[in-house]
Amino acid sequence: MPAPTQFLSYIDSHADAFIQRLADAVAIPSISGDASHRKDVFAMADWLNSQLTQLGVTTQLVDLGRHTMDGEDLPLPPAILGRIGNDKEKKTVLIYGHFDVQPANKSDGWDTEPFKLMINKETGQLIGRGSSDDKGPILGWLNVLQYHHENKLPLPVNIVFCFEGMEESGSEGLDELVVRESKKGGFFDGVDCVCISDNYWLNTRTPALTYGLRGLSYYKVTVSGPGRDLHSGVFGRTVHEPMTDLINILSTLVSSQGDILIKGVDEMVPRADEEEKAIYAGLNYNISDIEEAAGASIALSDDKVSVLMGRMREPSLSIHGIEGAFSAAGAKTVIPAKVSGKFSIRLVPPQTPDAVDPLVIEHLNNAFAKLGSKNILSVENLHGGKPWMADHRHWNFEAAKKATKAVYGQDPDLTREGGSIPVTLTFAESLGVNVLLLPMGRGDDGAHSTNEKLDRSNFIEGSKLLGTYLYELAAISK
Amino acid sequence: MPAPTQFLSYIDSHADAFIQRLADAVAIPSISGDASHRKDVFAMADWLNSQLTQLGVTTQLVDLGRHTMDGEDLPLPPAILGRIGNDKEKKTVLIYGHFDVQPANKSDGWDTEPFKLMINKETGQLIGRGSSDDKGPILGWLNVLQYHHENKLPLPVNIVFCFEGMEESGSEGLDELVVRESKKGGFFDGVDCVCISDNYWLNTRTPALTYGLRGLSYYKVTVSGPGRDLHSGVFGRTVHEPMTDLINILSTLVSSQGDILIKGVDEMVPRADEEEKAIYAGLNYNISDIEEAAGASIALSDDKVSVLMGRMREPSLSIHGIEGAFSAAGAKTVIPAKVSGKFSIRLVPPQTPDAVDPLVIEHLNNAFAKLGSKNILSVENLHGGKPWMADHRHWNFEAAKKATKAVYGQDPDLTREGGSIPVTLTFAESLGVNVLLLPMGRGDDGAHSTNEKLDRSNFIEGSKLLGTYLYELAAISK
Repeated sequence: MPAPTQFLSYIDSHADAFIQRLADAVAIPSISGDASHRKDVFAMADWLNSQLTQLGVTTQLVDLGRHTMDGEDLPLPPAILGRIGNDKEKKTVLIYGHFDVQPANKSDGWDTEPFKLMINKETGQLIGRGSSDDKGPILGWLNVLQYHHENKLPLPVNIVFCFEGMEESGSEGLDELVVRESKKGGFFDGVDCVCISDNYWLNTRTPALTYGLRGLSYYKVTVSGPGRDLHSGVFGRTVHEPMTDLINILSTLVSSQGDILIKGVDEMVPRADEEEKAIYAGLNYNISDIEEAAGASIALSDDKVSVLMGRMREPSLSIHGIEGAFSAAGAKTVIPAKVSGKFSIRLVPPQTPDAVDPLVIEHLNNAFAKLGSKNILSVENLHGGKPWMADHRHWNFEAAKKATKAVYGQDPDLTREGGSIPVTLTFAESLGVNVLLLPMGRGDDGAHSTNEKLDRSNFIEGSKLLGTYLYELAAISK
Repeated sequence: MPAPTQFLSYIDSHADAFIQRLADAVAIPSISGDASHRKDVFAMADWLNSQLTQLGVTTQLVDLGRHTMDGEDLPLPPAILGRIGNDKEKKTVLIYGHFDVQPANKSDGWDTEPFKLMINKETGQLIGRGSSDDKGPILGWLNVLQYHHENKLPLPVNIVFCFEGMEESGSEGLDELVVRESKKGGFFDGVDCVCISDNYWLNTRTPALTYGLRGLSYYKVTVSGPGRDLHSGVFGRTVHEPMTDLINILSTLVSSQGDILIKGVDEMVPRADEEEKAIYAGLNYNISDIEEAAGASIALSDDKVSVLMGRMREPSLSIHGIEGAFSAAGAKTVIPAKVSGKFSIRLVPPQTPDAVDPLVIEHLNNAFAKLGSKNILSVENLHGGKPWMADHRHWNFEAAKKATKAVYGQDPDLTREGGSIPVTLTFAESLGVNVLLLPMGRGDDGAHSTNEKLDRSNFIEGSKLLGTYLYELAAISK
């Protein structure tokens, strides 16, 4: 049961209106990580809720309580639960997405205003914060709903929606909701499979289905000593300087080649055999793809398989920055009193934060002890999530493969992703059903970065893909 | 010729009025490093100029031109040149000070409003930005002038004043002025010696005279690679990360014990012989003094001589921070595209920036080359200044020693300072006369830090000291 031709042509003929709706969504700066924008995340929830109800979805806004961010007590944005269709003969798919976005300021280096969708007619790029992560994909589902609503056609499957507004800030409150609603009699009870569209193709050419995600363990390592910031002229070479100590221990974590130097972390992961390597060799992907996406010829290796495994099936350690040190332009001669290095490790099976944390803490303590410093070290795990892997031979994936072939005329890349979407694992574990990641955007979309974009063709063909997937899902044997 | 008793009792009996004048000066937030406060630096120049002229000083405001700060084109605050007395029979002393201050916000951790002088009657502390650095000392000179002006008494020496408003921001424009006015026929022509009151006692108990300052060479080392910030999930372990590289090379600069690991830098300085060590052993100073000033027990050694030499006669290297990395609170999973480490080396004779720069650059290049990274390294010297040393047996110092003994009843510590006041060297080299640093404040005043203070007794006895110094200067044989 492929999607009706009318559906496909409806999407094409309504493209401009769909893009206008995306512009409306991007215009709401729903930055969950910035307290001053919390009201905009609420506004975005209202906007999305209104769209859903207008298209026939029965919704409820679920209050997730309050939390503290940057010392401020704030209300959490609501989760939106929705349902359309309740036909016992049909499969029920749970669709997840998030309506919050990463911070963005023009001064970060954007070429255009980040919250004003810029349509580049030449390149076909729709540029704006959230265009690809994750407002575009959410709106793809709205586009599918709109066709059925306007034409008074039933959907081929029952859909349960779960949209949140805190994904970019640790999905606070969501896990509890998912666990609760997954139980007998809960909102998600009876769900047959899950589909999440919140990641990216591997490259810019080949649609992808994703069956694995890395986990994450995020650390804050703090060195403190002086009672206040000191003048480097007066105190230089008289006291142990926290920055010297911090830089020293941070330098023991990872090599320039990406090898994790914390004993036991890399070793925890089984080495790939030749069969597994063949999977990576077969992906439509080149070193030039990653270097194009990164914007420079800085790949760790010239070997495609090695670079792909580094991203998909090996842990990685990145040092993100230092809090408390001098970080502005100019030349301040301060000895900062208390500095915190931030780094995180992306985890792959069988690694978990619980298994990795003790190794990291022991390593840091040992490295610091070797310095013989009188300063004080403390280590915190700010947040973490386990890695996830799904069976990509499951009928949920098979339906998506057929849909991809139908819309794009080619088989999808089967990928594992380097990033983390912790709720994926929560859905998989709470519901005990297959979870599929069905990306809409391309590998160079620049989620979390400046000039985030979604290609017009990915938005439009992607909307067709999401609809077609629902039809293939309805047709496939469980 | 000690100072007249009337002078000493005048200072005592006018103490409250002097403190009120200090409060008026502190109330003008003359932050030279903040473009939005530039108008306040001008206001401070006007205030000081008005005080000087009311006390009989003939002044001129010298336009130093314009400069660019944080991308903004700004007028430089004027230097104030002043003269009082032109008696060929008397010595002429040049007095330097600065009327600009470091930035300060209550939110930085101040207990009180930084630009409202808080008088703690219990501790005797006068708390406010600029109280000690350098408005208190400047006002000490005004107090001396006021006694003579009100009593219509001639000063024992001719005084030439040079006050600037850019000291905390690199003294822009001042060097050229000093060099120009030091020439035959210039404003400073005929000056016999220089006195600068812009540093601190070594401890909180013993007055000090300072005959040496460290120089400075400030570096910005940048590692760049990606075309933009990258997502650590997507790019972790696929590309060379600039932060990994930068942290690695910064970790090769200095040990936790303060030893500079750049080959040739420490080695450039002759080792102290036993005679020199005896000078440091004789200073009224304990490890507990430095640890009290630093606010923690973090001295590099338990040996007083070793710690004092580290501050006064050895170079030091401090890492101040990183520009371009994630520096806020929270847990951002970014791979920053371009990061710049800032560090500086305090120099001692015979080191100069010109001699040290090539060693630093070669070291950084070698350390980076060893990483085998595809990222790009660049090194800049942001600014630098040579170290300075004076002859502390000169009559200028002898006069100050007598004045100290007269006012405080004890001999001063003879110190070298860890910090840098580049104009000191400019005066010494341009005028070819002895330069004396005659500090007013204590070692724990917290210049450049939060809760900057000047003790009431240091302000009042310090004013007596400055006046007495002028009388001793008049009496001493050249």
